[in-house]
Amino acid sequence: MERPKHVGVIGAGECSNTTYQLSRDLGFEIGKKGWILVCGGLGGVMEGAARGCAEAGGMTVGILPGLEKHSANPYVKIPLPTGLGEGRNLLVVRASDVLVSIAGGYGTLSEIALSLKTNKPVIGLETWENIQGIQYVSDPREAIQLIEEYGR
Amino acid sequence: MERPKHVGVIGAGECSNTTYQLSRDLGFEIGKKGWILVCGGLGGVMEGAARGCAEAGGMTVGILPGLEKHSANPYVKIPLPTGLGEGRNLLVVRASDVLVSIAGGYGTLSEIALSLKTNKPVIGLETWENIQGIQYVSDPREAIQLIEEYGR
Amino acid sequence: MERPKHVGVIGAGECSNTTYQLSRDLGFEIGKKGWILVCGGLGGVMEGAARGCAEAGGMTVGILPGLEKHSANPYVKIPLPTGLGEGRNLLVVRASDVLVSIAGGYGTLSEIALSLKTNKPVIGLETWENIQGIQYVSDPREAIQLIEEYGR
Amino acid sequence: MERPKHVGVIGAGECSNTTYQLSRDLGFEIGKKGWILVCGGLGGVMEGAARGCAEAGGMTVGILPGLEKHSANPYVKIPLPTGLGEGRNLLVVRASDVLVSIAGGYGTLSEIALSLKTNKPVIGLETWENIQGIQYVSDPREAIQLIEEYGR
Repeated sequence: MERPKHVGVIGAGECSNTTYQLSRDLGFEIGKKGWILVCGGLGGVMEGAARGCAEAGGMTVGILPGLEKHSANPYVKIPLPTGLGEGRNLLVVRASDVLVSIAGGYGTLSEIALSLKTNKPVIGLETWENIQGIQYVSDPREAIQLIEEYGR
Repeated sequence: MERPKHVGVIGAGECSNTTYQLSRDLGFEIGKKGWILVCGGLGGVMEGAARGCAEAGGMTVGILPGLEKHSANPYVKIPLPTGLGEGRNLLVVRASDVLVSIAGGYGTLSEIALSLKTNKPVIGLETWENIQGIQYVSDPREAIQLIEEYGR
Repeated sequence: MERPKHVGVIGAGECSNTTYQLSRDLGFEIGKKGWILVCGGLGGVMEGAARGCAEAGGMTVGILPGLEKHSANPYVKIPLPTGLGEGRNLLVVRASDVLVSIAGGYGTLSEIALSLKTNKPVIGLETWENIQGIQYVSDPREAIQLIEEYGR
Repeated sequence: MERPKHVGVIGAGECSNTTYQLSRDLGFEIGKKGWILVCGGLGGVMEGAARGCAEAGGMTVGILPGLEKHSANPYVKIPLPTGLGEGRNLLVVRASDVLVSIAGGYGTLSEIALSLKTNKPVIGLETWENIQGIQYVSDPREAIQLIEEYGR
């Protein structure tokens, strides 16, 4: 049985309009491919990516830090409350085959590190710089090409 | 924004044909209602319920103990590896609004207890007996009626 | 290198004076043996057991549901905040070689079930009845004798 | 009730002799202060720090990724198996009031990030460079002085 790729998109819960649009563009391409988008379910980059993916008809999963599914952004189709706080960051990583990091703060950095520690590929878009192991790209299209190559 | 109910179905990874069919019947009704089925993603009761739900065109989520999404049964549409072992039992509970327990062993008992501890309704179908707090029913239809009443 | 046994004592955060004293008696015997007491760090049975163990000069570990080490009862020498809520129940089990259950509610039942699921011996003292797998005893001394036999 | 500080020491499970000795020196100072050392319980920096602390008569806690307390290094007095794999990294952070990072790989980076995300002070000794929020020091003595200031 073949299963669609799970693409984690990680980034901060608040971001600029430009970053939001970048996340939405990436999400849209992920949705068009038929891949499943996994994210932390909240605002900012997570919302942009989920929105884009949903707009392309794709599936969106939000792994939430709190206990309330209603805290998910409206583009998350499957909101999963965990009540683990930052403990959910590891779950975003474990549920993903490959991750794309966009901008982001310390929470995002923890997800990058946990991904690299567990040998998951991490693609970086205008994110934490100079971290060995991240494959830096300059736009969503390039990210999509890289994702395509993983897990063949 | 209104969101569909999340119904957790808990039960052992191996079960008799009768129990499998019971789980499948319940899953089918859950799918027909448009609710989201949450389970532990493996065999037995989890597979029966996911299968029935998928056969009714419903959405099925499997929160897995291991690291491999391919360990999910084929009726799980969204397989989520956690790598937490029995730690995923709590996540099945937290991701659900209401739970139905079918037959089951110690893992199921832990999920019943965690649900009742966190004030989630638990409906019991031929499961652990004499546990105060479980609402025992005798068939899937009765379970569906009870689920309907929760979270109004 | 030989390491002392880790004995988990599980039970509710509120209890009668009689149950508190029973827990304290058990804790005292655990401390006298030089074993390490593991508990959930809060009141009731957890406090009674930690108190008894500390009074015998023993080591006491409290694995806490919240984020604050100051929420531990004063007899816990090593308070460990987890911020995982009921998620810490599994950690009490995993940190213990053998568990003793005293009285208790749903949280305790989840710990009993997780212990039996993961093949840890569970000794029961005036606790959840009729659960196959629990070894029921009638006083702390009998519990101590059983603990002695495990892990030889 | 006043409780001793919990100092987390984070770093890789394998390290050079120089780094091991640095960790041991730091651990020794932590033990002399009467603080509790929290670490991941394995080799390398974790062992060096636990060894130094134990040599000064201090208390050492090891929060382990696996299920076996015997996987802890011999200087860990309280070994706590979690079975959560990298999920234990968050627990090291949550159990600590302040953390010192020595050298380290991706696992250490995840702990740095989770600490900063949850507003725990992080002191850096020859560790991941150029991360805003880390307070870089050049030797154990300087680290001790900073720890002293926290939580007054």
